Amino acid sequence: MSRDICIYEEFLTDAHRAQIEDAARETGFTPHFFALSQFEEARACLQHCEVLYGHSPELLRSAPADLKWYCCASAGVDPYCADPSMFANPDCLLTNSNVYGVTIAEHVVMVTLMLLRRMPEYEAGVRRREWGSALPIRSIRDGEFTLLGTGNIGVNVAERLRGMGAAKLIGLSRSGRAHPAFDEVHPISRLDSILPRTKVLVMSLPSTPETIRILSRERIALLPSDAYVINVGRGTAVDQPALMEALNAGKLAGAALDVMVPEPLPKDDPLWETKNLILTPHISGNMTLGYTCDANVALFCANLRSYAAGRPMTGLVDRSRGY
Amino acid sequence: MSRDICIYEEFLTDAHRAQIEDAARETGFTPHFFALSQFEEARACLQHCEVLYGHSPELLRSAPADLKWYCCASAGVDPYCADPSMFANPDCLLTNSNVYGVTIAEHVVMVTLMLLRRMPEYEAGVRRREWGSALPIRSIRDGEFTLLGTGNIGVNVAERLRGMGAAKLIGLSRSGRAHPAFDEVHPISRLDSILPRTKVLVMSLPSTPETIRILSRERIALLPSDAYVINVGRGTAVDQPALMEALNAGKLAGAALDVMVPEPLPKDDPLWETKNLILTPHISGNMTLGYTCDANVALFCANLRSYAAGRPMTGLVDRSRGY
Repeated sequence: MSRDICIYEEFLTDAHRAQIEDAARETGFTPHFFALSQFEEARACLQHCEVLYGHSPELLRSAPADLKWYCCASAGVDPYCADPSMFANPDCLLTNSNVYGVTIAEHVVMVTLMLLRRMPEYEAGVRRREWGSALPIRSIRDGEFTLLGTGNIGVNVAERLRGMGAAKLIGLSRSGRAHPAFDEVHPISRLDSILPRTKVLVMSLPSTPETIRILSRERIALLPSDAYVINVGRGTAVDQPALMEALNAGKLAGAALDVMVPEPLPKDDPLWETKNLILTPHISGNMTLGYTCDANVALFCANLRSYAAGRPMTGLVDRSRGY
Repeated sequence: MSRDICIYEEFLTDAHRAQIEDAARETGFTPHFFALSQFEEARACLQHCEVLYGHSPELLRSAPADLKWYCCASAGVDPYCADPSMFANPDCLLTNSNVYGVTIAEHVVMVTLMLLRRMPEYEAGVRRREWGSALPIRSIRDGEFTLLGTGNIGVNVAERLRGMGAAKLIGLSRSGRAHPAFDEVHPISRLDSILPRTKVLVMSLPSTPETIRILSRERIALLPSDAYVINVGRGTAVDQPALMEALNAGKLAGAALDVMVPEPLPKDDPLWETKNLILTPHISGNMTLGYTCDANVALFCANLRSYAAGRPMTGLVDRSRGY
């Protein structure tokens, strides 16, 4: 039987292709590369493939029952877990690519500073050609931060905040297991007791049944009025109407959302005009940085070797749990 | 003779006043505190004072010939050096307060990320309610940075960039003396050879005869077209019309200016509408952060003890050289 890999990705360089070809040769596979514009060609090829590497729910839906492993190039795999009919083979393995921590952490540091230093207000003044006087600002140095999610993103954010002199880093994770990047890590079940003392809340959770609207209306009300909320995980984690109301009413100091519901955001959505909100169109973890692409390909190649040898793969997802 | 100190500052807390009173008592001085609204009262008091602590060219102009030390609460002392007639006493000591490095460095990290991650373009899209696709961005991680000025600001910037994984930090200073925060430090005389390989230029120079328009039209032309320029020192260091032209013509990738000429910027200045420019109204180093105020007062108290004991003071300025 031919062992074929269908690779449907845009970001690959010649060096990446050579790397994949080496790993495939070693493990007895043949890789087939397709650009995003070659959907039909990719679909035809996929019919005799054992492995798919890419990030396309549409392509996965047309995969055969023989597909054994879907290597998703994205970190968030919620589109592939919500609907079991997505996989013709119910036992198809699914791995995700947790390689976006560095670039997303740079985004988080940027929007954290923009909120603490009140850039949205200064920028509005500059657009009106007004020379404003100094507004009271806050600082990462000596600041306290609550990180809801202590995975690849949360750890990279924590390390950068620490490097800039943050005084206290509180992590919240499923297990509550201690991690050297944080001063304290608590189980998410303690969230209600931690929100009232939160200054800046950084959310980097995957979308799973447990995280849907975890920042509920009631929990938003537990945050102090000078708190900031940053979400770079999934938009479903936030009660978006409640967050908008709190921001517009001044019950929160500000927020930065790179993820929201729905995406793309419709033209008439009130989120566009919400007060003290920095909105970005889900770009914190894109594939335009060389090191992110390199890490993505390196992870696929390492996992291909593990897969071929029957060893455990990195980022294997329990599709019923969603992570 | 009474030894009096006139203190004309707004940011002081009760704790700061107590600290100053302690240092004054120890050294045989009497402090007199005035808010910025009490200019006339401060001027009357100043007539019998030996020391002035504050940041007001107007008040200094009315100081008596007996004033022996002006402790300037600001880092930039160019308004006090340009015009020798400012001091009735030609031998009056002048010290500056280099305590703004941390907060200015946070500003620099913020605008560096905003430029590298193309936030001005994303923000313009959001104002038009457009869900943009991912633009090619750059990163601090693995990036190269040229820091023109390796003082308190430059070192704090370098430390933060290093903490976020910068690959190469090149410093430029008068002496070119090596410093552990930088991979290389060169004398400013080598600027012309370093500009062509500069990716991001961070300028934090004081305004002195040597730094006026140091980033001249000719030198702007030496920068690669994908370079970014950030200035948090003094606006006089940049040939502003030449920088505007380069930005509007796409001969530079972008810039962030917190300082400019003149300040405040007049309503009809073309700088307001320059392309790919992040403009802020000289707010990178303001007095709204507790740690900056604390450091300012601590420096004054330490210098008061040195002054009273005849020891060298920190930040003593050679008024003829301007730093």
